[in-house]
Amino acid sequence: MKQMCISLDAMGGDHGPKVVIPAALHMLKKYPQLRIILVGDEKVLHRYLKKLRVQESPQLQIHHASQVVTMDESPSSALRGKKDSSMRVAINLVKGGVADACVSAGNTGALMMTARFVLKTLPGIERPAIISLMPSTQGRVRMVDLGANVDSCAEHLVQFALMGSILTRVVEHIDKPTIGLLNNGTEEIKGNDQVKRTAQLLAEHPEINYYGYVEGDDIYKGTVNVVVCDGFVGNVAIKACEGIAKMFKQYFKESFSAGVTGKVAGAVVYPILRRLQKRLDPAQYNGASFLGLQGTVVKSHGGASVVGFQYAIEQAIIEIEENVPQLIRHELAEWLEEGEEELE
Amino acid sequence: MKQMCISLDAMGGDHGPKVVIPAALHMLKKYPQLRIILVGDEKVLHRYLKKLRVQESPQLQIHHASQVVTMDESPSSALRGKKDSSMRVAINLVKGGVADACVSAGNTGALMMTARFVLKTLPGIERPAIISLMPSTQGRVRMVDLGANVDSCAEHLVQFALMGSILTRVVEHIDKPTIGLLNNGTEEIKGNDQVKRTAQLLAEHPEINYYGYVEGDDIYKGTVNVVVCDGFVGNVAIKACEGIAKMFKQYFKESFSAGVTGKVAGAVVYPILRRLQKRLDPAQYNGASFLGLQGTVVKSHGGASVVGFQYAIEQAIIEIEENVPQLIRHELAEWLEEGEEELE
Repeated sequence: MKQMCISLDAMGGDHGPKVVIPAALHMLKKYPQLRIILVGDEKVLHRYLKKLRVQESPQLQIHHASQVVTMDESPSSALRGKKDSSMRVAINLVKGGVADACVSAGNTGALMMTARFVLKTLPGIERPAIISLMPSTQGRVRMVDLGANVDSCAEHLVQFALMGSILTRVVEHIDKPTIGLLNNGTEEIKGNDQVKRTAQLLAEHPEINYYGYVEGDDIYKGTVNVVVCDGFVGNVAIKACEGIAKMFKQYFKESFSAGVTGKVAGAVVYPILRRLQKRLDPAQYNGASFLGLQGTVVKSHGGASVVGFQYAIEQAIIEIEENVPQLIRHELAEWLEEGEEELE
Repeated sequence: MKQMCISLDAMGGDHGPKVVIPAALHMLKKYPQLRIILVGDEKVLHRYLKKLRVQESPQLQIHHASQVVTMDESPSSALRGKKDSSMRVAINLVKGGVADACVSAGNTGALMMTARFVLKTLPGIERPAIISLMPSTQGRVRMVDLGANVDSCAEHLVQFALMGSILTRVVEHIDKPTIGLLNNGTEEIKGNDQVKRTAQLLAEHPEINYYGYVEGDDIYKGTVNVVVCDGFVGNVAIKACEGIAKMFKQYFKESFSAGVTGKVAGAVVYPILRRLQKRLDPAQYNGASFLGLQGTVVKSHGGASVVGFQYAIEQAIIEIEENVPQLIRHELAEWLEEGEEELE
């Protein structure tokens, strides 16, 4: 691994420094070439470090920020009113070249708006998108967009597909990742106008290995490498899945704690349930990337555990290693140039 | 229960008469006031009845139809080219007043298009919608639209909400069912233009008990009685949930059949797993209603079991009992009149 520096929004998310600092310490041990800047209230952060008997060092620095963006704050009020928030300052460090990437578990909307304002989008990219790894029964599936945009037009969806394809190629070492377009059916007549137009553009695109339409259940079947959709649909779908997963968990818990039979059975199956839980643990899918910005920003789930936040930092490390924003910029420029040449 | 007659598309779905006929026989035993007309190839149906040692009777009749709509057929080709399909004839029987409702496990798109063409929509309803009961950790939740429409405008979504509210009121005996609008967040700034406009109309609507925005996970939390969304979003969301449920099931099976420990544990927890499976069995949520038509049409899942198909017939019985189409027509007319009076 090359030398790199990551800024962490240490106050963001449901748990703030309580989760961010232990995750940072773990990653510093794992990667000696890594430097981390903890951004947030220096008093609070110093207190946490002291409690954990850790001192500031060239590897682990604190950068003061006096404000915190709350989870329910509107993105525009965060952008206008919180210029010294831990989130904003962590992104500023990327903009200034001090950090190579930033990770935050804070308010998604505020993080996206601030990152877009500070870092700007890549030339040719109109809208950044959120991409994340999803669990599936086979292979590794990514889904884009998970909620950065609502009302995306066909051209935006094609850009999401292209960016998702590039990320997946370099991260998964797949030559031509397959791209599926999320639809309410796989027959040609299915879909709204936006999806039908997008399908046409994707099929014609020389850089995209377009598979065709996929349905909601294809996400978890691993039918394609990348599932593309508008952020409204993507967000609703993954939250619905989170909801049903929680319902299963609750039913499960109830079943294995009700009555003597349930409790005995629970004790017997405990190791199996542990293994099952590990396999389905959402922590390992934590860390959604903002694609299309002039810099790397990774969003952790607000309620992520220490292990979950480590996965988000890991995602940032991979993207720095692979130079994802520069790669997207480069391939986009090539493709746009080709388009211009064709027009001439 | 009053005397009633239901026509069944006996050839529809993945299993056709193999599922439809046993389900019909079960329901006839349960409800002596019920009459059922099996629609389909009379030779095939007679053979099935013979095998089950059942004879035609005033309670159970066969109505011949020479064609079958396949599951992957385009709705328009089914409508134009299969005028003597079991699906079409079953709907014709409702139109002609011979049957009070029709149940089919066939091709959803074809069923919707044919039902709409034959039965017509209620005055004032521009688009019919699909509504279904969903599993939830508390209470009974219905979701509308599950895929009849893509690109619904705000006015359509309000009609879906109103129809869903009426159905839920009479079926669940809830005075003023709460209506939630599916969105990618609950904050006011969230959502696309369609959702924002719909929220405004729902809030102003005198007949709708509008709760506000709900997110994907609220479906399974039972936050509201009825979740309203565009059919594209609804379809993707429930299919994604089906996908994750299948993934859980597969992981589960693997865990309890791997190695000696797994198998022993599997044997111990077997009764608990059975109970759990029963609780989560999709059969009990089978039977989606087409709302907004001048007649009652219930869609069974294509792959439904005999028990699942029974639930779909049960749904039709409830809607006949409660006179749902007439109720919607009546309340809609009242509301439209009030609107006109206000304008005067």
